[in-house]
Amino acid sequence: MNVTAATRRPRSDGLRSRRAILDAAARLATVEGLNGLSIGGLAGHIGMSKSGLYAHFNSKEELQLATIETAAGLFNAEVVEPGSAVRPGLARVWALSEEFLAHLERGVFPGGCFFASVAAEVDTRPGPVRDRIFAVIADWVGALEEAVAGAQAAGEIDPAEDAQQLAFEIDAMLLMANAAYVMEPSPEVLERGRRGVAKLIGPPPAR
Amino acid sequence: MNVTAATRRPRSDGLRSRRAILDAAARLATVEGLNGLSIGGLAGHIGMSKSGLYAHFNSKEELQLATIETAAGLFNAEVVEPGSAVRPGLARVWALSEEFLAHLERGVFPGGCFFASVAAEVDTRPGPVRDRIFAVIADWVGALEEAVAGAQAAGEIDPAEDAQQLAFEIDAMLLMANAAYVMEPSPEVLERGRRGVAKLIGPPPAR
Repeated sequence: MNVTAATRRPRSDGLRSRRAILDAAARLATVEGLNGLSIGGLAGHIGMSKSGLYAHFNSKEELQLATIETAAGLFNAEVVEPGSAVRPGLARVWALSEEFLAHLERGVFPGGCFFASVAAEVDTRPGPVRDRIFAVIADWVGALEEAVAGAQAAGEIDPAEDAQQLAFEIDAMLLMANAAYVMEPSPEVLERGRRGVAKLIGPPPAR
Repeated sequence: MNVTAATRRPRSDGLRSRRAILDAAARLATVEGLNGLSIGGLAGHIGMSKSGLYAHFNSKEELQLATIETAAGLFNAEVVEPGSAVRPGLARVWALSEEFLAHLERGVFPGGCFFASVAAEVDTRPGPVRDRIFAVIADWVGALEEAVAGAQAAGEIDPAEDAQQLAFEIDAMLLMANAAYVMEPSPEVLERGRRGVAKLIGPPPAR
């Protein structure tokens, strides 16, 4: 038995390549859908051989799950982390909302919010892919709820408000802005989402 | 030339069959997606031969467009018409909202709102299918806006409100309820949507 071959680590260009494949896959999934993300289709899209892709992913489901993790990492890095870095209180609720709208405007994913896009596709298909997508969405809703509760603790949102309900309503404005922006990518649509959030929690606090 | 054959009308069982095919297709599209709606796949789903389906539709796009018309007819019959039959004013805004939530609860489509489901799929694919879906959504938003303007004219919603913005916000609550209900089909989720609408326009008026 060749122990060296069995235990050697992937080459670093293999790692880079896997990362590049998954970044492309995450973007492509918001256009073609997560089920349109076949190994053959993705190979064609990024100009790689099918056998090259099979060296990275053994099945379509493995590719889908890895794509979801990549998208979750992007969403955290681009939206949740910068929003959560702002001081607790109303400022953080606003920061999460603004970072969400900004990631739409920057076109991080060509089909808008990755998770809104794929949730509509997999919602009727039970399995690990759906479970993972729903879990990422639940984390996002949890971050919004915690931020609302923090603003209540800081006396900046009425403590009598139901934090879960208010997070649902704020998320509604953001989800609607996403749906409208994908149909009509104008800053005015994002401004509608912003005005909707302001109606719920008032304007952003001065810095 | 056989004029009789060339001009004869479709048999009535052919008409019934086309209707039944399209009802199945509209439901299936909210599960498999509009692009998952191939003539072969639909034939298998409803237990019909591919050649039988080709007798009704010449192409996948023709099938998709006919499916969208069927879904639009269902949505109008189940949501827009009963909502619009209520007297103008706040009552009509509420009726449209309640009929929308009720069609989710009745499971008219297994994947929730047909148009939310397929919009997320086709938003990045220009063409007649996307145009028709966007037009149906614009009609719905227009009905909400008109209802809001009617409630303003009746003095039941502050005339200083921007009707287009308020319709966006009401629709946001309904769209969010749809997204959440498909993930977790509980009456509590629909109640969250209802509470969101009530926060925007107050409770439904007494009948």
